Amino acid sequence: MAVYTQIDDAALDQFLARYEIGTLLSFAGIAEGVENSNYLLRTDAENYILTLYEKRVNEAELPYFIGLMQHLSAAGLQCPVPITDKDGDILQQLSGRPAAMVSFLNGTSKRFPNPKQCFALGQTLAQFHLLSADFEMTRKNGLGPDDWTALLGSIDTPPEGMPENLLASAADKLSAIVAQWPDNLPSGAIHADLFPNNVLFVGDELTGVIDFYFACHDLYAYDLAVCLNSWCFDSDGSFNITKSTALIKGYQTGRPLEADEIDSLAILCSGAAMRFFLTRLYDWIHTPADALVKPLNPLEYWQKLRIHEKAQSPQAYGIW
Amino acid sequence: MAVYTQIDDAALDQFLARYEIGTLLSFAGIAEGVENSNYLLRTDAENYILTLYEKRVNEAELPYFIGLMQHLSAAGLQCPVPITDKDGDILQQLSGRPAAMVSFLNGTSKRFPNPKQCFALGQTLAQFHLLSADFEMTRKNGLGPDDWTALLGSIDTPPEGMPENLLASAADKLSAIVAQWPDNLPSGAIHADLFPNNVLFVGDELTGVIDFYFACHDLYAYDLAVCLNSWCFDSDGSFNITKSTALIKGYQTGRPLEADEIDSLAILCSGAAMRFFLTRLYDWIHTPADALVKPLNPLEYWQKLRIHEKAQSPQAYGIW
Repeated sequence: MAVYTQIDDAALDQFLARYEIGTLLSFAGIAEGVENSNYLLRTDAENYILTLYEKRVNEAELPYFIGLMQHLSAAGLQCPVPITDKDGDILQQLSGRPAAMVSFLNGTSKRFPNPKQCFALGQTLAQFHLLSADFEMTRKNGLGPDDWTALLGSIDTPPEGMPENLLASAADKLSAIVAQWPDNLPSGAIHADLFPNNVLFVGDELTGVIDFYFACHDLYAYDLAVCLNSWCFDSDGSFNITKSTALIKGYQTGRPLEADEIDSLAILCSGAAMRFFLTRLYDWIHTPADALVKPLNPLEYWQKLRIHEKAQSPQAYGIW
Repeated sequence: MAVYTQIDDAALDQFLARYEIGTLLSFAGIAEGVENSNYLLRTDAENYILTLYEKRVNEAELPYFIGLMQHLSAAGLQCPVPITDKDGDILQQLSGRPAAMVSFLNGTSKRFPNPKQCFALGQTLAQFHLLSADFEMTRKNGLGPDDWTALLGSIDTPPEGMPENLLASAADKLSAIVAQWPDNLPSGAIHADLFPNNVLFVGDELTGVIDFYFACHDLYAYDLAVCLNSWCFDSDGSFNITKSTALIKGYQTGRPLEADEIDSLAILCSGAAMRFFLTRLYDWIHTPADALVKPLNPLEYWQKLRIHEKAQSPQAYGIW
């Protein structure tokens, strides 16, 4: 939860005069989002989300993220539509920050999505991959396998209260993952962070995919593996094969998996678990005690990684 | 800015099933409010604000605040309407906190309201006082002159960087204010915290008065004095008599001031400045460094107090 930048009402009026979006009716900072400041803005015509990009976001990469949202929304994916001002510009400056306005999407995120919602996510993820195929910009995944090794190397000692051999054990597991990492699978623009909090539903109907700020060029099946990690575990830490079956089935209605993608699923899931274990471990160590956003426990993904290691075949994920 | 309590989506669904308010379309914690957690909730029918009352709020006093909102909204004041559930109840429990839902009001607050907006505020403040006259519940002002003395007495040393004689000087000024404090002026239910951030406008039209959690029984003209302090100073710290003239004129269209209220205006303004100086000073000293909500500078109200001390007559506020 975060609103890092306060916006003065006079500065806001001046900013909104750039757009043809009607009369401002309400404006409120919202507690969603970790990296940026987000505001819900209502006019007599529509609802919008205004985002101010905070320090952790690389301004040079914004045209990629915004371009991808533009491309996918125009192609029919339910995602935010970037709003152009009277001059046709999307990226602006407001209160000393890069800023952009996008359409508001109905829906709320589900902490523990049900199988129907997992199926809908699978369908939408396939649609994302199919529709992004002719998106021309590209961005390297800044959190791929090479970066995991560097990330782990940057950590000297495990945080207090975590197992002493955690780093050595992680290094072993990481070597095994990197050694088996597939490099000839179908790839393209992926979301790369499609956790439940980034997907909106009204009832079981999926109404939106948000937060494109980790999107990059990588393996399609890796994107699926990120979703299997974040959507298909129950609150007690166990893997829910009913949900994974539904998610993969939904995905295959749009984009059937190739044989080598299916064969690689377990290692891709291990890699995805490793990625979130490592970034959470890093944030756990480096987040100041007084930060607005509290770090997430890395051990959740350590447990998931161990479950994926035991998956001997695609059947473990519900593929028969 | 604050959202202290996270609400699980399953708990929210269960909570909303108590109401007849349509299908949930979106739900977001908002950064407004210091004392409580506030969420903007949209259904296919309406927009609502859901408030979770945090620890600083005395649960026993909630029926007064909610009753006052009910009374005033029913009488025609533009303020939130408390929403009853299917059983006719307003106060609920959610995520371990007392909770209530109210109607959402259009409008945004103005950091530096213009004279037209000050006039509109005056009109609405008079309406508040007239309409609350037959509200039967009552609540003592927990931050009246007696409490100021106790508050000042609880502070041992001025915060670092503030004048060394600040506390002694404040004690002198406070004695003078208490000695001159009027006790026979018209009184009733007042808002007691009607700062610009608690009043909403669309353009210059006042669309709502919010945040009733300091409301209490006290002098009507003291409520006006709080507004003169918070609405009629410019960003450079100077008193803007054009704004105060407009505010008082607006007020008198609804409720003409009595002669002894006019005579007491300067001392009531000094008292109001003292009240916010002291609570800010207290918060400045007692807010932990890692708090979500940063304390406001008390010296802003010290300067205002000095300006009111120089006001020799009602003319200083624009009353001729």
